[in-house]
Amino acid sequence: MSDRTPLADDRSPRVDPFLEVREKRVGRRPGDAYVRIVRPFEDVFERGTEGDLIATERTVLDRPGWTRTIRRLRTILIGQPISSLREEHERLTKLKALAIFSSDNISSSAYATEEMMRILVLAGIGAITFTMPLTITIAVVLAIVALSYWQTIRAYPGGASSYLVSSDNLGYRAGLVAAAALLIDYTLTVAVSVSAAVAAITSVIPGLLDERVLLAVGIVTLLMLGNLRGVRESGTIFMAPTYLYIVAILGMVAYGLVQRATGTLAPYTPPADWLRAAGGGQALGLLLILRAFSSGAAALTGVEAISDGVPAFKPPEWRNARITLVWAAAIFGLLFLGISYLASSIGVVPDPSEGQTVLSQIARVVVGDGAFFVIIQAATMLVLALAANTAFADFPRLSSFLARDSFMPRQFAFRGERLAFTTGIIALSGLAVLLLVVFGASVTALIPLYTLGVFLAFTLSQTSMVVRWYRRREPGWRRGMVINGLGALTTGVIALIVIESKFLSGAWMVVIAIPLLVLLMTAIRGHYRAVDQALAVARVPGGRRAARAPIVIVPIARLDEPARQALAFANSISDEATAVHVTNDAATAEGIRRQWIDWAGGAELVVIESPYRALIGPLLAYMNVLQRQDPSRPILVVLSEFVPRHWWENLLHNQTALRLKLRLFARRNTIVADVPYHLDAAEADPDAISRR
Amino acid sequence: MSDRTPLADDRSPRVDPFLEVREKRVGRRPGDAYVRIVRPFEDVFERGTEGDLIATERTVLDRPGWTRTIRRLRTILIGQPISSLREEHERLTKLKALAIFSSDNISSSAYATEEMMRILVLAGIGAITFTMPLTITIAVVLAIVALSYWQTIRAYPGGASSYLVSSDNLGYRAGLVAAAALLIDYTLTVAVSVSAAVAAITSVIPGLLDERVLLAVGIVTLLMLGNLRGVRESGTIFMAPTYLYIVAILGMVAYGLVQRATGTLAPYTPPADWLRAAGGGQALGLLLILRAFSSGAAALTGVEAISDGVPAFKPPEWRNARITLVWAAAIFGLLFLGISYLASSIGVVPDPSEGQTVLSQIARVVVGDGAFFVIIQAATMLVLALAANTAFADFPRLSSFLARDSFMPRQFAFRGERLAFTTGIIALSGLAVLLLVVFGASVTALIPLYTLGVFLAFTLSQTSMVVRWYRRREPGWRRGMVINGLGALTTGVIALIVIESKFLSGAWMVVIAIPLLVLLMTAIRGHYRAVDQALAVARVPGGRRAARAPIVIVPIARLDEPARQALAFANSISDEATAVHVTNDAATAEGIRRQWIDWAGGAELVVIESPYRALIGPLLAYMNVLQRQDPSRPILVVLSEFVPRHWWENLLHNQTALRLKLRLFARRNTIVADVPYHLDAAEADPDAISRR
Repeated sequence: MSDRTPLADDRSPRVDPFLEVREKRVGRRPGDAYVRIVRPFEDVFERGTEGDLIATERTVLDRPGWTRTIRRLRTILIGQPISSLREEHERLTKLKALAIFSSDNISSSAYATEEMMRILVLAGIGAITFTMPLTITIAVVLAIVALSYWQTIRAYPGGASSYLVSSDNLGYRAGLVAAAALLIDYTLTVAVSVSAAVAAITSVIPGLLDERVLLAVGIVTLLMLGNLRGVRESGTIFMAPTYLYIVAILGMVAYGLVQRATGTLAPYTPPADWLRAAGGGQALGLLLILRAFSSGAAALTGVEAISDGVPAFKPPEWRNARITLVWAAAIFGLLFLGISYLASSIGVVPDPSEGQTVLSQIARVVVGDGAFFVIIQAATMLVLALAANTAFADFPRLSSFLARDSFMPRQFAFRGERLAFTTGIIALSGLAVLLLVVFGASVTALIPLYTLGVFLAFTLSQTSMVVRWYRRREPGWRRGMVINGLGALTTGVIALIVIESKFLSGAWMVVIAIPLLVLLMTAIRGHYRAVDQALAVARVPGGRRAARAPIVIVPIARLDEPARQALAFANSISDEATAVHVTNDAATAEGIRRQWIDWAGGAELVVIESPYRALIGPLLAYMNVLQRQDPSRPILVVLSEFVPRHWWENLLHNQTALRLKLRLFARRNTIVADVPYHLDAAEADPDAISRR
Repeated sequence: MSDRTPLADDRSPRVDPFLEVREKRVGRRPGDAYVRIVRPFEDVFERGTEGDLIATERTVLDRPGWTRTIRRLRTILIGQPISSLREEHERLTKLKALAIFSSDNISSSAYATEEMMRILVLAGIGAITFTMPLTITIAVVLAIVALSYWQTIRAYPGGASSYLVSSDNLGYRAGLVAAAALLIDYTLTVAVSVSAAVAAITSVIPGLLDERVLLAVGIVTLLMLGNLRGVRESGTIFMAPTYLYIVAILGMVAYGLVQRATGTLAPYTPPADWLRAAGGGQALGLLLILRAFSSGAAALTGVEAISDGVPAFKPPEWRNARITLVWAAAIFGLLFLGISYLASSIGVVPDPSEGQTVLSQIARVVVGDGAFFVIIQAATMLVLALAANTAFADFPRLSSFLARDSFMPRQFAFRGERLAFTTGIIALSGLAVLLLVVFGASVTALIPLYTLGVFLAFTLSQTSMVVRWYRRREPGWRRGMVINGLGALTTGVIALIVIESKFLSGAWMVVIAIPLLVLLMTAIRGHYRAVDQALAVARVPGGRRAARAPIVIVPIARLDEPARQALAFANSISDEATAVHVTNDAATAEGIRRQWIDWAGGAELVVIESPYRALIGPLLAYMNVLQRQDPSRPILVVLSEFVPRHWWENLLHNQTALRLKLRLFARRNTIVADVPYHLDAAEADPDAISRR
């Protein structure tokens, strides 16, 4: 960062480039020679090295008129702007990082058991006994995946996003596939987690069941605002619920295990109609078990979040990230195994109406209906909403990588006033709301779309690591290759299982969407590259042609002050400006012609009668005629525009000017200058210039 | 009209102002001196008196790129543009005028009887006997109103719109009340007539009953397109159905009377459930009879249409209009009396589900279910749709009067390419569709809102005539005063009856809407007047101040061709243009600074670092600092804008430029010049200028 001294410390115009500029600005004509000694930039600008100006916060906060209201609203919602210089202070401790990056993974424990049971129960109540073996299998997969990422973090301390790792080792197309898969999955994370949070609410207050889409959209909006406030604040806001959930569920599991061991666990019979609904028409085949497995494996999403976010940790980044990864995986494993075990022991059955979650049934049995139950439900609801928050950290960051590489629109790479990737956050919120509305905020409806993306990204990332180990042959490469190879194989097989078992119920949408997204991203980069090449300055020295003074025309509708102001501007930059009056009324034209000499002095007036009452067509035709006489000379069209006091007054004015501008914008070699005439300025002292 | 000779006939540059202009355009610098002898305007412009250019049709039809597609679509939908010079040929014969101006009035006979019966039946089937006496009363009122307008036409041969007549004699406020009442009623005419047309369709095809809003919107759209084609064509298109309806219904009535006289009329019993639904809970009081009367009186709307449109008749306008008025009133009276008489004799009862109209019941009894029945229904449907067409002639014409007097936005006064008042036609269609959707295209739901406006306008117009007779005391003024006084009294009483009887069922909306519209129109005129005064050129001679050359700044994001082009333009009009680079990245800024001297030659570069990553705020702050040093000098901001090949590519570019322009537009003393850079131009020969 450049070292900064306020301008006030240095008053020599020789050293201060801004004052030099001011000296040069003293005009050529006698009337223009006008110097006033002011230093108004003390609070607006500071001075950097090499004479740069450095804008202060006031340049962002000081806004004129109605935009001030927007500014205030924005400050209330997302806070004051943060300087780039503060970026390094926004690093995360392990405790905060666990809350931000692992809430997705940890919170999956709230619904993973249930989603497996929902599939198994299709083959009858008896099939639920498969819940525990499947849970153990998934825990083993978790260990393998976590170990693989433990290695990836060391190899890519600058951020081990699947997109970066795959691009690096398998080429940019593989990277794009991983990126597309992850973007889809992050969006689904928000939709699924928020739906699950809403399910936790409606378990306690069934009356809200009809409003679940509305509730879900409300939660997404809150998450969006929280994230627009910036990464550190969202960490602080969201830390408490994660730990509350971990403590509450671990406590419940422990208490349940004690009751189970001592035989004091209350007996439980699910409502008869739930059992009746379960009476499965389907056979308990391999496909059903695989479907149940892949539903449960959805819980593994979010394991990669920590490795994506390595640079956000305090130094030494990679070591802190590794420690956090081990903790996160261990906590999630414990929770998942505990919940599945209790669910099986108690004999819980999923509620076909999605009113009561499995977790809340367990909690009712273990701790009863009291305060602890409410705490568990509240913590679950909050942590599920937070799981969405992981995606709010990941999606914008991945989008910014993609935008930096020209695969997404540039806006995604810009940090907003609070250092957050504003465009990515807003885009994610919009997409999630769309999914929630389309799928009615139902976890069960959304789950089949989920999972595939994550496991695809897992597989690509682990495969990349295998390739990397093999290419580099660094010390320990064989062991590393085996671990990552095992990870790649496991996650690859799961990805295939997900496609196989969930294709018809929703995964097909993802299978179609990923290549489409890859194509779109490739097309966007193609476009940006083509444009950059076309816009690049010709390398040939002297390729610059001398600029030719433009032909200046001023369309004039009436002889009024705005027209006069436009004409005055035209005359001030050209000695041969021409006014053009297009009319369908010969009488008015005659009047204008009569007043013209008095009014405009020597300037020339061309009158075009338009018997078809069109304005724009004849004007463009006139410009074409001028241009054909001298094709390389640009035409400058000076438009007078009246700026009314209130925006809605524009409905009564300027409609034609707007249409004309659109047409002129498409015309070659044409420059449009807007000379706005401010109504209130006309009534005040004409020399008084508002500074806001 | 000015006499026109093609430019080709006269090649002397002295006489031809356009060529003179071209001579002046030969620039000051040596490189600019460039003359080419071309006469490309032969087909684009003709030459008028005093050297004006007169645009030909080609200036409207020749359009570039994608706008050509819009042009073609427009030509298919509404036809080729029509020159103002053809306006006088667009006059109407009496036969056409009757179709255009009286279809509203004449078509009311299709539903007036039914709407009266619907009210009467609320007091039981017996109350229907009041239908005939009420019909006779309304016919008498019709005669009085027609006679009144017969006089008004003579007094205002230039157009006897209630707005004009009332403004002239009672002041502009009374005129505005009449105008507001009429605008509302014209809109309701469209909604009611189209709903009635749809009812005629669903009487034949009951399966379409659920789609009646959609059908109604479709009919409005067709009417809109027909009217956008211009007045004469719409007369031709719409003449046949009116006369078909008149002949068909008169024939049916005559045939029915013959059957009645000879006792061969088929017996008729309405369905039992209709009779049951009728079993009135309400007493047959005066209020109910008055309500029935005012429902029937709705049929009188449209009587004023002929007097509004006097100037559209062939000369002698007033005499032709009077003759047409008498014919229209007589035809309507015959139809209405005949239908009511047959309905009473046969014993028809209104269908509570609005499926079968009274007219179709009569037709079934008189002519059976055959081809003649279908012809009657088809003619009814068409003529009701045409009734809406009267409003499509009246609403835009009245709006244009109001716009000419500054009471409505100026667009309403402009004639489109086909000489129709495009804005008024589109506004009417939009409002009618809104009403149709809100009221579910139900005649019965819309009728209470109807009628009040027309009778208010009748009353004001007749009262104005009374005042006028009294003031002028021309020959025959006493008789005239008596006739118009009787008209004013009758219609005034009916207006009161309408308010009294229909207030709660809908007329309250009109009672509220009229003063609101009057206030709005007064406010619009106030706004236009204030603006005109503020914009008017100061009368003091020499009040013009010398124009000062602007301060020129060129915001530059990257060193590319668009930036270079913008800078070249800036340098071509100012010797002291400055480039400004706002950045949040010190490294990029350093790179730009290093290349600058090579790139831009002598031009100055100011770099502003923006640690809050904002672009617009620091730029405006910089402009404020410049401005404070020399407040009266305008600042010209030259923006380079990249114009992509396809409009959707704009999503990937120019977002910031757009926001910047919005902010700069609001800034005082600031001029914005857009220098577009066309991508495809860059690839082609840079000197080749497209002319289309």
